[in-house]
Amino acid sequence: MRHIVSSFSQELEHLAADILRMGGIAEAMITDACRAVVTADEALAQDTVDRDEMLDALEAELERRIVRLLALRQPLAADLRTVVAALKVSTDLERIGDLSKNIAKRTPALDYAGLGSALKGVDSMGRSVAAQLHSVLNAYSDSDAGLALRVWTNDEDVDQHYNTLFREVLTDMHENSSRITAGAHLMFIAKNLERIGDHCTNIAEVVHYQVTGDYLSSMARPRAPLLEP
Amino acid sequence: MRHIVSSFSQELEHLAADILRMGGIAEAMITDACRAVVTADEALAQDTVDRDEMLDALEAELERRIVRLLALRQPLAADLRTVVAALKVSTDLERIGDLSKNIAKRTPALDYAGLGSALKGVDSMGRSVAAQLHSVLNAYSDSDAGLALRVWTNDEDVDQHYNTLFREVLTDMHENSSRITAGAHLMFIAKNLERIGDHCTNIAEVVHYQVTGDYLSSMARPRAPLLEP
Repeated sequence: MRHIVSSFSQELEHLAADILRMGGIAEAMITDACRAVVTADEALAQDTVDRDEMLDALEAELERRIVRLLALRQPLAADLRTVVAALKVSTDLERIGDLSKNIAKRTPALDYAGLGSALKGVDSMGRSVAAQLHSVLNAYSDSDAGLALRVWTNDEDVDQHYNTLFREVLTDMHENSSRITAGAHLMFIAKNLERIGDHCTNIAEVVHYQVTGDYLSSMARPRAPLLEP
Repeated sequence: MRHIVSSFSQELEHLAADILRMGGIAEAMITDACRAVVTADEALAQDTVDRDEMLDALEAELERRIVRLLALRQPLAADLRTVVAALKVSTDLERIGDLSKNIAKRTPALDYAGLGSALKGVDSMGRSVAAQLHSVLNAYSDSDAGLALRVWTNDEDVDQHYNTLFREVLTDMHENSSRITAGAHLMFIAKNLERIGDHCTNIAEVVHYQVTGDYLSSMARPRAPLLEP
């Protein structure tokens, strides 16, 4: 019996380790996708796109393992919350990978003439979003509900970045019709980053629930209204 | 014992009924969001936005019930697949509600001058996406893996609609700078519909898995490449 209990807690640790591994890949994908866009680095963009498959495979493998684990171990209470949390977080991380891939894919299509200022906006919004994911992964790793709550609240900053960048791009499109296509790309890049930020708050909610058993989503989250377009 | 078995299968039926109820709300939200945009009906847009809360509440309630059910019933094999499927489908339906709300919210901000042709594109893309959700909900309700597979394959049509609409809007933005802001709204509307289509294929994958135990996602899905922008 002792052996089985210990082996089950090992399985839970193994789940958490795989989530953190997926999280590390996703975080690097955000950073590299933005760097590829900002520096027009097509090789880095392609490398980022290629990494998405790894994330998809890890999520599928994790899901299979979780279903098996639910069937064989029939976990209860905190253990059950841990397993359900892993299932949900892996879905968010997979989506973050998709969104980062979508950002990176735009690199070869971007016409860089005159984009300087908007690219700075992409750079700083990308850093802000990657930092949110970094923090919420720390919260997951350390079972830190307080840090999860801070990430959840900080999403307002991401939304402010989004509004600033969006307004700037839209104004530029009106003033320079030659940059309409590039502007459309930048709008989608900004929107994808904003959505990655939302996935970070989803993960923060899951971590809070896993640690405390309480749901954050019923609380009113301060949120900057999105002014698009 | 007989009583417990029967009551568990009732619980599973109750889960499925709630998923279908969420699905019905989501399907109506897609249709009404598009109708609100196409006919400039601000009251219908607001009504659509308001319904999203109901979907959020249903998803949260369903998740709590599923966690309780996993703990108390510890389902195995096909029953476990049914429960995990309900958890995943409810997440997709909640996201479809978010995306529909985002479409509806753009109604009051849209400047309709000269948008006629693009609005036709929104109308037909919206119908196509709502039909995909309708079919995949039928597949869920009837445990029809064949229909799920057809929905999964048909996503190519949605992507074709998206490409056509996107190209048209982008061309129009280049030709009429007065329609750049409206064009940006229409691009996001098209993108949101395309993403709703992706959630329908996610649900199709889950239904196929629930019915057959096999994963569709490892198969190559025919997919029109997105040409944006």
